[in-house]
Amino acid sequence: MMAAPIEFFFDFSSPYGYLASGRIDALAAKHGRIVAWHPILLGAVFKVTGSGPLTQAPLKGGYSVMDMHRCARLWGVPFEMPAAFPFSTVAACRAFYAVEETDPAGAVRLAKAIYGAAFGAGGDIAGPETVVEIARVAGFDGTALAASLQDPRIKDKVKQATDRAIAREIFGSPYMIVDGEPFWGADRLDHVDRWLATGGW
Amino acid sequence: MMAAPIEFFFDFSSPYGYLASGRIDALAAKHGRIVAWHPILLGAVFKVTGSGPLTQAPLKGGYSVMDMHRCARLWGVPFEMPAAFPFSTVAACRAFYAVEETDPAGAVRLAKAIYGAAFGAGGDIAGPETVVEIARVAGFDGTALAASLQDPRIKDKVKQATDRAIAREIFGSPYMIVDGEPFWGADRLDHVDRWLATGGW
Repeated sequence: MMAAPIEFFFDFSSPYGYLASGRIDALAAKHGRIVAWHPILLGAVFKVTGSGPLTQAPLKGGYSVMDMHRCARLWGVPFEMPAAFPFSTVAACRAFYAVEETDPAGAVRLAKAIYGAAFGAGGDIAGPETVVEIARVAGFDGTALAASLQDPRIKDKVKQATDRAIAREIFGSPYMIVDGEPFWGADRLDHVDRWLATGGW
Repeated sequence: MMAAPIEFFFDFSSPYGYLASGRIDALAAKHGRIVAWHPILLGAVFKVTGSGPLTQAPLKGGYSVMDMHRCARLWGVPFEMPAAFPFSTVAACRAFYAVEETDPAGAVRLAKAIYGAAFGAGGDIAGPETVVEIARVAGFDGTALAASLQDPRIKDKVKQATDRAIAREIFGSPYMIVDGEPFWGADRLDHVDRWLATGGW
């Protein structure tokens, strides 16, 4: 029986989600696993938890931005905070699930392109037209995607993905589940790595 | 010139502070450094940041307790959550600074004994009488310490240590400063290790 995928929950406006996104596929492959990418809307999660964007927390916010840059340098990942932050990720999330319907691997490729535009290049990816343009440049059908972003079925997929995550008590991004074991935070990828190597401890 | 000590800020009711406390001296010694231990009152910090005990955060709280146990197993540290949590750490903090006046190394030894009673054995260390008893068992003069816990000068030392930490924007526990570079969280000890080995990145 094939081993279960690593479930990877993230929000497109999560800097640490971006930092994890660049490492998780290679980490999984090392252990003969694949990754199931699940973008969600963290704003809906924060309504449940009463939490908010890390970078806006008093004192902790400034430290966190510094730590993101330091982690990025350590891991060799380009990193730039978008000037407008946090930002809406509804269009990005819909684009992912729209592409995923017919092209799951393409959806992951698109997710990386969107994350790269946001945190690799510090760009603004909030608007649907920007997301469509990123997709077009990455080789997807922009016209079809633009229509999908308004499709009630796709809108509902985003809502359902987020609701399912909340029902599973996922409260942050990135959040990984490995054979039922939850790990929160980009820094827990080291634990995920060891968990997969040892079968847990 | 001797290299600067690693500054180690923590609250005696911080589980991750406890987990870091068992590893930080050996880590520092590996790099020819010593550790300057600075217990603080995180409650006063939380009044500034509007934050609160991690274990009481919705959803995140339950995960965190699981993660603490998992980190403790990974690092080979005994760990038990005290039944009453969070708890007052005023007496523990005063005891530290009272002993430190004449016996800095003894204060660190006492800090480890207090932390061990709380999170190694899951005990209640809130009351001054408990702290004095822990100190007595560890070889300190219990009668003198009991008097010190009521000494206005010692009370003021705790307040000053906490105020200085807040002035330096320290918002959590554990919090380490290495040659001016801040690191927050027990999981950042790996970064501290690498920072000391490489001189930073």
